[in-house]
Order: sequence, then C-alpha cells, then structure tokens
Amino acid sequence: MFAEIITIGDEILIGQIIDTNSAFIAQELNKIGVSVYQISSVQDERLHILEALKEAEARADVIIITGGLGPTKDDITKHTLCEYFNDTLVESKEVLAHVEAIFKKHLGIPLLEVNKNQALVPSRADVLHNEFGTAPGMWIKSEGKVFVSLPGVPFEMKNLITTKVIPRIIHEFKRPYIVHKTIITYGIGESSLADRISSVEDNLPSMVKLAYLPSLGSVRLRLSAKGNDSEQLNAMVNIEAEKIRNLLGDIILGEAGDEPVESVVAQLFTKKGMSLGTAESCTGGKIAQQITSIPGASAYFKGSIVSYATETKIELLKVSKATIDEFSVVSAEVAVEMATNLRKILKTDFAIATTGNAGPTKGDSDAEVGTVFIAVVSPKATVVEKYSMGSQRERIVQKTVNKAFEMLQKEILKF
Amino acid sequence: MFAEIITIGDEILIGQIIDTNSAFIAQELNKIGVSVYQISSVQDERLHILEALKEAEARADVIIITGGLGPTKDDITKHTLCEYFNDTLVESKEVLAHVEAIFKKHLGIPLLEVNKNQALVPSRADVLHNEFGTAPGMWIKSEGKVFVSLPGVPFEMKNLITTKVIPRIIHEFKRPYIVHKTIITYGIGESSLADRISSVEDNLPSMVKLAYLPSLGSVRLRLSAKGNDSEQLNAMVNIEAEKIRNLLGDIILGEAGDEPVESVVAQLFTKKGMSLGTAESCTGGKIAQQITSIPGASAYFKGSIVSYATETKIELLKVSKATIDEFSVVSAEVAVEMATNLRKILKTDFAIATTGNAGPTKGDSDAEVGTVFIAVVSPKATVVEKYSMGSQRERIVQKTVNKAFEMLQKEILKF
Repeated sequence: MFAEIITIGDEILIGQIIDTNSAFIAQELNKIGVSVYQISSVQDERLHILEALKEAEARADVIIITGGLGPTKDDITKHTLCEYFNDTLVESKEVLAHVEAIFKKHLGIPLLEVNKNQALVPSRADVLHNEFGTAPGMWIKSEGKVFVSLPGVPFEMKNLITTKVIPRIIHEFKRPYIVHKTIITYGIGESSLADRISSVEDNLPSMVKLAYLPSLGSVRLRLSAKGNDSEQLNAMVNIEAEKIRNLLGDIILGEAGDEPVESVVAQLFTKKGMSLGTAESCTGGKIAQQITSIPGASAYFKGSIVSYATETKIELLKVSKATIDEFSVVSAEVAVEMATNLRKILKTDFAIATTGNAGPTKGDSDAEVGTVFIAVVSPKATVVEKYSMGSQRERIVQKTVNKAFEMLQKEILKF
Repeated sequence: MFAEIITIGDEILIGQIIDTNSAFIAQELNKIGVSVYQISSVQDERLHILEALKEAEARADVIIITGGLGPTKDDITKHTLCEYFNDTLVESKEVLAHVEAIFKKHLGIPLLEVNKNQALVPSRADVLHNEFGTAPGMWIKSEGKVFVSLPGVPFEMKNLITTKVIPRIIHEFKRPYIVHKTIITYGIGESSLADRISSVEDNLPSMVKLAYLPSLGSVRLRLSAKGNDSEQLNAMVNIEAEKIRNLLGDIILGEAGDEPVESVVAQLFTKKGMSLGTAESCTGGKIAQQITSIPGASAYFKGSIVSYATETKIELLKVSKATIDEFSVVSAEVAVEMATNLRKILKTDFAIATTGNAGPTKGDSDAEVGTVFIAVVSPKATVVEKYSMGSQRERIVQKTVNKAFEMLQKEILKF
C-alpha cells in the first residue's frame, strides 16, 4: 500500500522554509506499514495542484496534502480540491462554531468575514476537527482512494495526523507490515563497510533491503523488509542482522530504533540517578540545548556554563591562567580543568566540557580550525579525547555534540 | 525559466531524514532568477527515477538531482542517468586521481575496488569537481535542457551548487529577474492582516504576488515580482510595499531580506562594540547556541550560564532564595535578578535571561506550562516581559528564543 505527500506553498519552492512536515508524516505512515512513494512540493497555483493530484492518484492509495488552507487569498487548496472532484464548498456548522470560539477565547477579537471562509469545506469531505487552529482537516474518499487535506502549520498538522488520520487509515485499509532494523557503526566509511559485508549484501532475500546512511562520524546500516507476515519478516531481518553483526562486531556502536542519542543518554542518567552539567566553549550551548530538548531533563541536568570567551573560562570556570598559557586554550588540559571545575561548581556526578576551534579563523589559540578536545569527568574516571572535525563550522559543532553524547553514553554505562 | 529539484533516497521517504538540501538549492536558484517549479523526493528505484526525470524534463529547463551517488549498491543514480540518456559509464582519470588522493591523504587507507566506481561517469557528462568528497557532480546537456547530478551530503552539495552550478547556469541561460520584499509584522494574525490590507491585495498588478508567511509570533508578508526589467520590478514592488506600510505602520517590526534575526543582532552588537551574555533556564542554552552559530560571535559574546536547576540559579547566578520563595522561580523578579547578576558576573554590557515552564508538566514552580519571563539588562535599561507561549514544549522554547532576539534588537538599537 502506497501513500504520497503533496505540500503546497511557494515558500518551500523559494527555499524560505524547509519542509519538515513531510518527514513527520512519512515516519508516521511507515510505522503502520504504509510506504510513501513520492513527496512533491508544488506551487500555490491551480493547474499545478490539479496536475500533482492526478499524478499522485495514479500511483498511490492515500494522498496527503498539506498547506494552502489559510484564510487569505493565496490559499487555494480547498477551491482546487472542489475543482478536482467537481464539488462545491458548503459551510460546516461545526467548524464555524469552533472558529468563533477560538476568536472569542484566545484572540479576544470578533470574527472577521474572511475567517468565516475557514468553515467552508467541499460537500463530500468529512471534517477532521483541528482543535489547535481554524483550518479543519478534510478526508475525501474517491473511487477507493483517500485524499486528506491538512493545514501546513506543523503542530496543527502533527496533531491531526496522530489523532485523526493514522487511526482512520488503520481502520479503513488492510496494510502490510514493514520491519526496520538499524545497526550503528563507527570509525569506518561507507565503502569499507560495503566491502566487509558484501557477502551478506550479495545474498539478501529479495524482500529485504539494505541501505547505508552515513551521518557525521558514523554509518547506520538499515535493513528493511515488507510483507504480510510480521513474524517471518522479523525473522528474516534478524537473520541478516546477525550475519552483519558477526562480520562487524568490532565497529558496532549499537542497534536502534531511530531514537536520538540524547534520548538514550537521558534515559541512562535518569535510570542511574546520576546528575550532569556541561561546560561548553566551541559548542556554544548546543549540548545543553539538546539535553533540555527532552522533557524531564530537569531530573538529572543541573545546568551549563557556556564559556565562549577565554576570560569567562578563567573567571567563571576557574581554569588556571597558567594552564592556558602553557597549553593554550584549546588543549586537553583546559578541557579537563573545565569539566573538573564545573563538576565541583554545580556539584554534579558527571561533567562534560568542550574546547576547540570551530573557525572560520583561528581564535584565542593557535589550534587549527576543527581541532576539538572533549573531556568527561565522572566519579570513576576522567577521560579526554582530541578530534579533528574538518573545516566547516556547522559540522564541527554538530560532530562535537555527537561525540560528546557518544562519550557520555560510554561513561554512564560504567555505572 | 524553471528548474526542478529531484532528491533520490528512501531515507527521505521513510522520514528518517529531513530534506534540507532542496531549500538551499531553491534559495540559490531564486537569487539568480530561476524559479523552482516542483521539488520531488523519489525512491532509490530505477523505474521511479526514470519517471521523475521524464516528468521534470517536460516542465523545466534545469533539473537538479541530489543523492544516490555513493559507492554502495543502493546508489543507482548514475546507472539510471545512463539508461535515461542511452549512455554508458566511462572512467574519469581526473576523478580517479582525486579519489585516490582523498583515500591516501585523509583516510590513510588504500583505495578499495568499490571506490574506483566513484570515478565512473556517463560519457556525455561534464564532471563538476567535488573538492570535499569522492562523488563528482555531473552536468549533462540534452536538447537545450540541463541535468545536474550532485551528491546528497549537504556540505558537498552546497559547495558544488555555489562554486560550480550557479556560475554555470548564469553563464549559459538568459534569466528573468525575481524581486522579493518581505515586511515583518507582529501582534496580529493572518486573517486580520488580510482584512487590513485587502484594498492593496485586491488591486495588485498581475506581475506582483503577495504571500502570508505566519511563523511563531509574527507574520511575514512577501511581495514578489518576476520579469525582464529589474528596475520596473523593483519600482512596482516598492509601490505596493509603500501602500502596505501606510496601512500597517503600527505593527511593522521591520523589513527584511531573509537574514535570520540572530545575524542582525550579531551585526548590531559588533558595530556598536557592546558585549553580551545570557542566563538561560527554560531555553536551555538555545539562545547561546543560536548566537554562536554565527561566525565571529566571540567579538561580542562572552558566554552563558544555563541554570536549568533552581539550585544552579541560586548558587551560580546568585539569585536570592528570598526572591524565589516570594515570587517563585518563574517570575519577573527572578528573570531580572538572573540578568542583572549575570551581567556583573560576566562583566558584559548586556545580559538577557529567560525563566519559564516549557512543560509538559509543572516544574519547580506553580507557573502554567507556557508561562515565560524574559529580562534584558543594559547600561540604559532593565526590561522584563511576560509571555504565554502555548502548550507545546518545542514551540515554547523556539518562541522564547525568537522573542529574546526581538527584545535584544530593540534594546541594542537604543545605543
């Protein structure tokens, strides 16, 4: 069973916004065994939308459309859907009452004429109640296929997908199972990996697919299988995963769902009752920010000192000026002092510190752009590692953050 | 003149990664007057890619393809391009030498057989040298149209677009001009805005388009015009912008290119020679992280104390326990003390502080989820504002960060 996603809006095509909606929808569909065949972003333009609907209908069973449902004149999705289905817009009393309530309660202003348009829906559409906004979701059935139209505002769309669209697809369609297993490797590149597991890859059963997903510092190997017998699929994927494990044992970091490493670290710290603080220089607060992006971080995360300037390292983190003078501000010694002192200042079990040069020019030290030191101090150990993270500022920071979580994971597992 | 972007890779269709490449490419094309007609994400599958190429060729003059150029078996873009153009792969000596050099210099390992495949290119393709990786870009001309194939790794793709693809499109195609002007409004919603400027919108010249781009806390109005006479286009857009300005004067925050607010703030602090520090609770380091994402931040940014735990606010930021007991940790009083004390601790001209409840549950205070206080202290003023940022954790944090930059911008402009 296939779905397609169509996002409507010039702002994506001029690159003003990144389409994050489609990845969310694709993930949710995949979880229930619906494969996304294609994602298309098209203009706010009648003929273009009609063409995209026709192409998608020819290929997929469910077509999910986001965007173009606002009250303003550049929003033409509803009118175009009516044209496509030879339908007319009718006023939904339910939606009108909801829009009026939103205006009264949250905005404290009277309903404008233009907002009444939000209550117009194609006569054949089922309304999907959008509790977070004025644009309703719509579910239109046509010759065994389903068209779903959703607002483009991410949190409204997400809520409608999760609470309305997915349950109804589950209810109305018979779907195959999709099984994924991801093996995370580190330290060697995509091609060397392929070389080491070619005997497995060359003999994969036809139902199993293998993909290489390189990301900063590691390559994920994703095995996928799709079919009607979930037990058989799981067994097949497990057999192939076992073969890969036997060939790559030394360079496997872990296996995953697609859970981000900061979630894994959060669970470990919470489970083990250990507290954490960060002292960040070149990462500029990004480790703290990723930690606090997970609800419940306050259970183990005390805080961070972002010591971007050298003087802040000295005055706030009490790094000794002698150490900086002798070893430079980008050094293993400074990283260790930062972590050690932060741990004392915040009275945490663990502290992690970063110092490095993210470029584009050399800063307060002579270290090459891309040189980074990361130190972790725990009740059991003091570990410091040096990395060369390339020359691209954004990548240096993200790679350092990834390595930091990797090191934290390794150290917390000792408890 | 139209372009289309095709991204190849199952990882986008299963939602494992977000397609950020297309937005970058679309932006760069727009700058030189090339409109993107459609963006399509398709599977690593021969027939699907062939279909997408054919559809895009029918609609556009330039087709830019990313992904599927790795050395592994799931990478089939080159073979499929050969099939589409009835061509064969030949070895490029230039690419082979480059791949060998990369392996020798950066990886310190010998070239594997599988990597030699990276040097194979369709015989009719011009190689676009990829200095950052082993997969070359390719430029294929066919019946007046151009197909460009690029690696999917963002920093390799970006470098190829900027240094190779855009200059060559400029050289080989006559392009129209595209003019954009964005007016940033705050405080009222999309529909009220539309109501206030309907007289302008109803009478726009046919060459000018108006779009509403709501984002957290503000709506951007984008005027666009496309044609052959850049002076005429600019004049037309300026006339319409002036009309809008007259109608919305009281709620316009600024006009923009699409420069992010953190860049604007960075320029202002650098120009005025003022220094800055942040004391962050509910934003968890995200303000510091956005500040340091701009190269050169060390010229004015001293650092941050992320005081996630209440005890960190007391011990490190020296917020008085009496204030917390009297007003609670989420209060204007605590926000002001955080900023005031941080400014002394870091010896900066400006300090900004955030305290709030990002949910999902109430934390160390009784404040409702979504309640946030932001304080800015400068040599001229102490400003504190209270906001209700809704109930979604991610949005609460991002809205707070946006507001923080807005407040900083307002305050630094007083100097």
